[in-house]
Amino acid sequence: MSLVLELANYVGITAFGISGSMKGIRKGMDLLGVLTLGFSTALGGGIIADVLLGIMPPTNLVYLPNALVALLASLFTFIFYKVFTNVNKPLIYADAIGLGAFASSGASLAYSVDPSPLLVIMIGTITAVGGGVIRDILSNEVPLILTREFYATSVIIGSGIYFVLRYEGMSNYYDIFISFVI
Amino acid sequence: MSLVLELANYVGITAFGISGSMKGIRKGMDLLGVLTLGFSTALGGGIIADVLLGIMPPTNLVYLPNALVALLASLFTFIFYKVFTNVNKPLIYADAIGLGAFASSGASLAYSVDPSPLLVIMIGTITAVGGGVIRDILSNEVPLILTREFYATSVIIGSGIYFVLRYEGMSNYYDIFISFVI
Amino acid sequence: MSLVLELANYVGITAFGISGSMKGIRKGMDLLGVLTLGFSTALGGGIIADVLLGIMPPTNLVYLPNALVALLASLFTFIFYKVFTNVNKPLIYADAIGLGAFASSGASLAYSVDPSPLLVIMIGTITAVGGGVIRDILSNEVPLILTREFYATSVIIGSGIYFVLRYEGMSNYYDIFISFVI
Repeated sequence: MSLVLELANYVGITAFGISGSMKGIRKGMDLLGVLTLGFSTALGGGIIADVLLGIMPPTNLVYLPNALVALLASLFTFIFYKVFTNVNKPLIYADAIGLGAFASSGASLAYSVDPSPLLVIMIGTITAVGGGVIRDILSNEVPLILTREFYATSVIIGSGIYFVLRYEGMSNYYDIFISFVI
Repeated sequence: MSLVLELANYVGITAFGISGSMKGIRKGMDLLGVLTLGFSTALGGGIIADVLLGIMPPTNLVYLPNALVALLASLFTFIFYKVFTNVNKPLIYADAIGLGAFASSGASLAYSVDPSPLLVIMIGTITAVGGGVIRDILSNEVPLILTREFYATSVIIGSGIYFVLRYEGMSNYYDIFISFVI
Repeated sequence: MSLVLELANYVGITAFGISGSMKGIRKGMDLLGVLTLGFSTALGGGIIADVLLGIMPPTNLVYLPNALVALLASLFTFIFYKVFTNVNKPLIYADAIGLGAFASSGASLAYSVDPSPLLVIMIGTITAVGGGVIRDILSNEVPLILTREFYATSVIIGSGIYFVLRYEGMSNYYDIFISFVI
């Protein structure tokens, strides 16, 4: 994994960890509920993608740094909740970066297993939106991706572009950059 | 896969794609939400069954025709929604055919992996009802199979009959026919 | 599997089968809905754990005794519902034993696949609480583990202690005993 992709991965985990634990706090959950929801949101998409690709046990359940970052992000959100509600705008950027980062890493992983365009797009999308879907299902709500169009659209297009670029042999850094812009 | 089974497979995908996207439309989702829900309903049961049987990546995420049929069925439903609401009766038949087709193909796949009666019945049932369960969970409702008895009963019995017939060495066409009748 | 662990396994399946089917009855489901919910609650955690560890098809879908115990527990609950509502206290003990038993067996299984502390704790926890999460999602409610703290805490600590004990080479019986006490 390149340095850029690895950094993006941690940004994504942090962003989704915050988003999951904020939802837990708003639903009136206590510390453990908030941590569980933050953890599931941050790592759930990657776990589902790994299972679908046959990578078992999933990286997120074995590789400690990912779990630690998810846990710390959730813990910090629980402690500094009032700060975060005042910084809504940066959070949306973090969410967008998280989606882009996860779509890239998911698409990249799928490509290494089987370079089928359908698989690359599907796994890229599932990695990116899976955590949010888990968060909303556990919170007993209709998943946001089903009701807010721009959200998933950008991820699907991003994964698709990833495949085309990869297929035409362009560099990895370049398409990650593009995924981010989108 | 025999021609009859393959045809039944596409009928099943179409029927569940329509059922999923109609639910999305009724919930007021926009195009992408409707397509995602139709897609998940049509292909979700098969994906879960493949994962449980250790077939990774799942066929529905690699084999393009299945995905295309699911997408087209959902798109057509979105465009011609008003027509479909007036043809409720044929839809129920399509749903029944879909359940029968998916139960048959799931049971058949499970049998080829491990001819245990429990597995054949369970995978046949999961393949058939899995998509509908995903549809209802994503729509934030109690799954229909838990509240409408005849629905799952027929699928479980169908998968059971499939196993008995297969075990006794009868022809494939015959038991698919029986699954349909039930 | 040791005799103690196997016995605990059946106690766990019975306890969760009862808890799942009681929820189904309270939600006004009919026989098949109740059986399905009891079955999913009793066997779901183990199935998810098996998939995450790469054990496919999952034991609970192949090994008949587990499925039979789950089905019988659910059937008995459906028939003798009024009796069970008057014995709420023993049920809470059964639930605690079930959590301890499933956390132990999940942690033990994970350890045999990969002795990573994170994996052992995560799989132990998922095996124990997975069935209850499935039960609550299918019932269209926020999972209990997210709102009642002591519940998951004890399971996580139990799985953690299991790992430490195992790592230090202590006997299996001893740590199962400890998991139960916690």
